[in-house]
Amino acid sequence: MSRFMDARLAALEPYVPGEQPRDRAFIKLNTNENPYPPSPEVLRAIDEAAVRDLRLYSDPTALELRKAIAERYGLRLDQVAVSNGSDEILAFAFQAFNGEKGVAFPKVSYGFYPVFANLFGLKARAVPLKDDFTIDVEAFLEPGENVVIANPNAPTGLALPLCDIERMLAAHPDDVVLVDEAYVDFGAESAVGLIDRYENLLVVQTFSKSRSLAGGRIGFALGSAAVINDLETVRNSFNPYNLGRLPILAGAAAMRDEAYFRACCDRIAATRDRTAAALKVLGCAVTDSRANFLFVNVPDLPGERVYARLREKGILVRWFDADTIRDWLRISVGTDEDMAALVKAVKEIIEEGMGA
Amino acid sequence: MSRFMDARLAALEPYVPGEQPRDRAFIKLNTNENPYPPSPEVLRAIDEAAVRDLRLYSDPTALELRKAIAERYGLRLDQVAVSNGSDEILAFAFQAFNGEKGVAFPKVSYGFYPVFANLFGLKARAVPLKDDFTIDVEAFLEPGENVVIANPNAPTGLALPLCDIERMLAAHPDDVVLVDEAYVDFGAESAVGLIDRYENLLVVQTFSKSRSLAGGRIGFALGSAAVINDLETVRNSFNPYNLGRLPILAGAAAMRDEAYFRACCDRIAATRDRTAAALKVLGCAVTDSRANFLFVNVPDLPGERVYARLREKGILVRWFDADTIRDWLRISVGTDEDMAALVKAVKEIIEEGMGA
Repeated sequence: MSRFMDARLAALEPYVPGEQPRDRAFIKLNTNENPYPPSPEVLRAIDEAAVRDLRLYSDPTALELRKAIAERYGLRLDQVAVSNGSDEILAFAFQAFNGEKGVAFPKVSYGFYPVFANLFGLKARAVPLKDDFTIDVEAFLEPGENVVIANPNAPTGLALPLCDIERMLAAHPDDVVLVDEAYVDFGAESAVGLIDRYENLLVVQTFSKSRSLAGGRIGFALGSAAVINDLETVRNSFNPYNLGRLPILAGAAAMRDEAYFRACCDRIAATRDRTAAALKVLGCAVTDSRANFLFVNVPDLPGERVYARLREKGILVRWFDADTIRDWLRISVGTDEDMAALVKAVKEIIEEGMGA
Repeated sequence: MSRFMDARLAALEPYVPGEQPRDRAFIKLNTNENPYPPSPEVLRAIDEAAVRDLRLYSDPTALELRKAIAERYGLRLDQVAVSNGSDEILAFAFQAFNGEKGVAFPKVSYGFYPVFANLFGLKARAVPLKDDFTIDVEAFLEPGENVVIANPNAPTGLALPLCDIERMLAAHPDDVVLVDEAYVDFGAESAVGLIDRYENLLVVQTFSKSRSLAGGRIGFALGSAAVINDLETVRNSFNPYNLGRLPILAGAAAMRDEAYFRACCDRIAATRDRTAAALKVLGCAVTDSRANFLFVNVPDLPGERVYARLREKGILVRWFDADTIRDWLRISVGTDEDMAALVKAVKEIIEEGMGA
């Protein structure tokens, strides 16, 4: 920190994203990207005219994109806000939260929540997972604090049933319950259907996973007009042109191609379930992931060692140096070929371990 | 504001961007966009492969873009930070500023500065311009507060000589002096050459004006490694993937096409100066703008009326409902054809006024 910086920010520990190798020889299963390209409609939308029009500002209301999202989810326009990736709208939400009140989230979850709480000076309560890695719903039912839940949760992949989300909403009539559904399209129950009944519900989703646009940086929030309006006030005080012309075009095109979206999600879920079965045959423990990644424990081997050996074999996965999950790996679901290579590599690592 | 929102944000008054008409029939001279398309190199960079690769995250360090910028300005990589438009990096800077200390900026300047100060709870001092619309340099020489200066200033277009910027830097050894050079490429002196001598200098620039990428959303900051590192800490705690793959490609390509950039800037400056001369012939007062817009007073007519009549004639310009500049208009420099139409329309409006 330089001598010019606000001392209140001295303790900031930025989020550390997964490694982005410049060497493309890796099978990259470490950042939950989609193995398939974006919809062909996205390719059509970003044509020469769109690039020439970059000389003009984008629409600060991102109307075309918000329309496409509102139509897809059966919501009104004033129930939709968009952002430069879902991290940005999460940041806006944390900033808009009542700071006196504080915020609770699972201790093992998306690593950015404590960073945001820190950045905006919020009192944060990190609630340990239960021994089976599920979220301890009972611990989130005391009103008087805002709640953030990733559903499915990361990196476990485990999803809460909608009835548990609804219990939290009912228990927190005067607090915001933010449900981060980055991975919901791969097989969990979305809370979007509850928006008209709970003014305190804020659902955050992203185009990065199920719509193959991680590098396009498009996120969105769905909720009551009241809560969405708060986010818009923060957005317009921070960066009104937060989405460029190309993300607006790409996002609208991707959102309207429901058939392609559905086919990609189905394919990834099928690959995921086949891979989980194959890893279990090898003796691995694998959670019941509803996301586009698997959470895997290789028996009798430290997680860091498996991570390092996979890396040597040209496969990048994510290992977290954290208490209860130190011997687990988060493995993104790639193509069938990627996952066959992964299963083969895990098998070799297990055999090495037995030989040792 | 909903009952969920932080009461400290209750008084937020978001920035109001210039009107973005969906009806394209207007001659659009209201948001300082470049009348010419981005470099042909940008068109080449955003090819089908780039769109297909959107499935992958962007490089959170935006290395290729930062390299292109560092090379262009003769700086090291650790002296360059990039952002989703220059508004975002301005926001990061305001957030990183020492909050106890407060920040001073000209009262008539970019309308976002007081919004940022408000958003991050900073004590702000808005210093009136002198009667000739120049910045009152003497009023910015007291140490103990951070300083933000747009150079050239908006909406006046007037530039400070580098020696005045240097006086501020020397007077504020322990405060940050942020020089917002959004418009510098059209004829003002840049402070970039002072970076190696003043650790407290932060220069902010944008691709929106001189590089025809307003809709691409790319801004950057240049400064000492110490101050840039502070901005990076905030950026990485807020949105590490703040630039998508396409802006990184587009920005690097535009930055490397120096010949195209230079030709565009020269052409716009020439059109500006011809337009200013023609408006003066009509009796208008016109400041000595070093930006890609003109600041114009039409004699004996309220600014709002000229704005409204121009709008009726299909020409959008910017009018600010603010004290000392109420009878002035900010008019972006378009093509020669656009500006001929503007001059003709102003002439008609003056003649109407004399007839009335």
